[in-house]
Amino acid sequence: MPEPTALQSADALLLPRWLLPMEPAGALLTGHAVAIRSDKILDVGPTDALERRWRPRERVELPEHVLLPGLINAHTHAAMTLLRGIGDDLPLRRWLEEAIWPREAALMSEEFVYDGTLIAAAEMLRGGITTAVDMYFYPEAAARAFTTMGMRSVLGITVIDFPTPYAADADEALAKGLAVRDAWREEPLVSFLLAPHAPYSVGDAALERIATLAAQLDLPVQIHLLETAQEREESHARHGETPLERLDRLGLLGPGLVGVHAVHLTESEIALLAERGVALVHCPTSNMKLASGIAAVPQWLDAGIAVGLGTDGAASNNRLDLFQEIRHAALLAKVSQGRAEVLPAIQALELATIGAARALGLDARLGSIRPGKAADLTAVALDAVETQPCYDPCSHLVFVAGREHVSDVWVAGRRRVANGQLLLQESNSHLTALAQNWRQRIQLQTR
Amino acid sequence: MPEPTALQSADALLLPRWLLPMEPAGALLTGHAVAIRSDKILDVGPTDALERRWRPRERVELPEHVLLPGLINAHTHAAMTLLRGIGDDLPLRRWLEEAIWPREAALMSEEFVYDGTLIAAAEMLRGGITTAVDMYFYPEAAARAFTTMGMRSVLGITVIDFPTPYAADADEALAKGLAVRDAWREEPLVSFLLAPHAPYSVGDAALERIATLAAQLDLPVQIHLLETAQEREESHARHGETPLERLDRLGLLGPGLVGVHAVHLTESEIALLAERGVALVHCPTSNMKLASGIAAVPQWLDAGIAVGLGTDGAASNNRLDLFQEIRHAALLAKVSQGRAEVLPAIQALELATIGAARALGLDARLGSIRPGKAADLTAVALDAVETQPCYDPCSHLVFVAGREHVSDVWVAGRRRVANGQLLLQESNSHLTALAQNWRQRIQLQTR
Repeated sequence: MPEPTALQSADALLLPRWLLPMEPAGALLTGHAVAIRSDKILDVGPTDALERRWRPRERVELPEHVLLPGLINAHTHAAMTLLRGIGDDLPLRRWLEEAIWPREAALMSEEFVYDGTLIAAAEMLRGGITTAVDMYFYPEAAARAFTTMGMRSVLGITVIDFPTPYAADADEALAKGLAVRDAWREEPLVSFLLAPHAPYSVGDAALERIATLAAQLDLPVQIHLLETAQEREESHARHGETPLERLDRLGLLGPGLVGVHAVHLTESEIALLAERGVALVHCPTSNMKLASGIAAVPQWLDAGIAVGLGTDGAASNNRLDLFQEIRHAALLAKVSQGRAEVLPAIQALELATIGAARALGLDARLGSIRPGKAADLTAVALDAVETQPCYDPCSHLVFVAGREHVSDVWVAGRRRVANGQLLLQESNSHLTALAQNWRQRIQLQTR
Repeated sequence: MPEPTALQSADALLLPRWLLPMEPAGALLTGHAVAIRSDKILDVGPTDALERRWRPRERVELPEHVLLPGLINAHTHAAMTLLRGIGDDLPLRRWLEEAIWPREAALMSEEFVYDGTLIAAAEMLRGGITTAVDMYFYPEAAARAFTTMGMRSVLGITVIDFPTPYAADADEALAKGLAVRDAWREEPLVSFLLAPHAPYSVGDAALERIATLAAQLDLPVQIHLLETAQEREESHARHGETPLERLDRLGLLGPGLVGVHAVHLTESEIALLAERGVALVHCPTSNMKLASGIAAVPQWLDAGIAVGLGTDGAASNNRLDLFQEIRHAALLAKVSQGRAEVLPAIQALELATIGAARALGLDARLGSIRPGKAADLTAVALDAVETQPCYDPCSHLVFVAGREHVSDVWVAGRRRVANGQLLLQESNSHLTALAQNWRQRIQLQTR
């Protein structure tokens, strides 16, 4: 914390009723304020001390609000928002092979990705999400869309073994993705990771290349992992080993690897992942809707695995809503373990903030409200009738409030949502018209 | 349908983009309108035919909306909204015995019930719920609150064997409840049912008396049933029979009985309930949060049981939000059965409308949009960015939209919500102040 001798300037002083910094763990503060300057959190402390210490250009009164770190969506496919709700009531493989992949083959383009990502970013920002990890194609288009909306993104350099409109093969996808990473090196809101789609859709050669690149470039790797039981059986049949054995043989099973879904891990696999420092992302709604199963999240956490939460794409969820994922994580953990005390509210909130930041290796910059971290912040109003009365704001954030109660959102110190409305060049009506235009094209092309 | 020879008057003509009448099953209509007069649906049909047939006092354009029957909350404890979120992370019995019953013993009063029910009704109406089945005490206070808010209610004459501030024993509770029923006989928005709390909390004598009264007065009976596995074990220990065997011996296991939760039914018990015409209410969120288990709803439906959905009370959910229950019913059915095709969107919507009406014996008046039925209607706007694009409005109602997208609600032909705002004497700020006042009293009294 700086120790100014005279009153120094801050860009804004935020004055919430409750401050939920997520570090130290479990702290819920009243009478505290947050000062921000430029893109960073400048100071956190008792309101009177901060009032004495800083001269803010703006004071933001949040008298019935909880202020918490901006939520981190640790796994999505943003552009698939244009396919929202297509192919309901199908299990994962049929959903991919019958509903999604044929449409993507016909439709995917730079324009599709840019427009779909714009709409996804609008939905996420308004719902209190300040960072998204995106696994899709045309990362340059996604980078333009996320930065246009003022949202932070971690873009996957996505690799899949069959040809797509984006790339003929894994090598082309990697080459194009790494070129985009070079071109966007100076943009602070954008970073990258390597994203092989899944063990069943990416061959040994590409996975080995990705392991090498990850080590050389110090890039994380995100991969769909054991989302269904079928994946284990197929891996045995095709490779004579489990998916984890295969990833281990190919040099990927270590820190920096982020497995997504991981519904079908054995106990010893959970222990192995913990030992290796592999992180996991839980996507509870997608796992329910596709009938993939219920992940053993409490066991992951007990083993010491870093865990984030993801919405998955809007074609399988069908909301990019982390409040929903937080609630579902808590509810599913309780009912699947048969113990109501499992995954209490504060722990569920960790999954969407500091937990996700740790899982992605971003916890030095994101995930909690501490001086020096990025000023990515979300305020939630708890004064609506349906949120009253309130005995415990943490419980309310998980079990009562929804993204509809998000009032204000800051990303890198800039307010992007105020009073529940996006502050953007891209207006709601423009985005809605864009979506409706795409719906017509998609229905025509895939009739 | 009437066949007027000249243009006749209607109170309103509603012109939605999509009409989801719920009867005939699965119908989704475009270019259709609904005429209402007084408290009833007057006519349903192609817009041009209705325009020729009726001269409405008001035309309501709903250009981006689905119009569906008002949702039916088949099980709640409305006044417990004042205890919203108290006692999180506890299993059912500990939650009741440590968090809820002691507070109720200290607090419960006519004023508590009136104020709590007002707040609950505001939340439910704004969320598209037009009817609630309420199991609580002081039904006269609840009747006043629901009718003040203009919401339809089915009030439980609630019986529990231990003394409460409301009644010393079952006989007093029944006598008081039946007197309230007599006093409110002329109010069309209010009806009654008998509500023994649960087999484990009501003795044989009271259950027998309730069976007799139900037959004499033609009243339905709603009871918490096999919410936890413990209930079966205790019944064996105390009575030497299962809860269902006991209800059967006491004359309750037949049409008119509505079991709530029913998480722990065996296959043969499901067949027995179907054979006897017993209806069930599914409360998926409460069952998850209290770790009670996952009810076998697809098996209930396959057996032919009439099924409704309930929010349960705000102390164990903690939202009175049927959109959430509809989504959870669909998601839980898919993941628990391991089949993504189970409980598709339209079937999930039935549970909250015509299914609930059948379960409660109210399907002659409620649950679908047909001429002659009550004009209880809910409009949901699907033009927000987060609901775009839309390929299938039924899917969107279940997996994308939330109660925050409810724009207009009619109960018995009167508009109670317009553009997402309650049209009420009781303003939001009054209700919020009421809730905050109770929170202070409750925290003081139960410190």
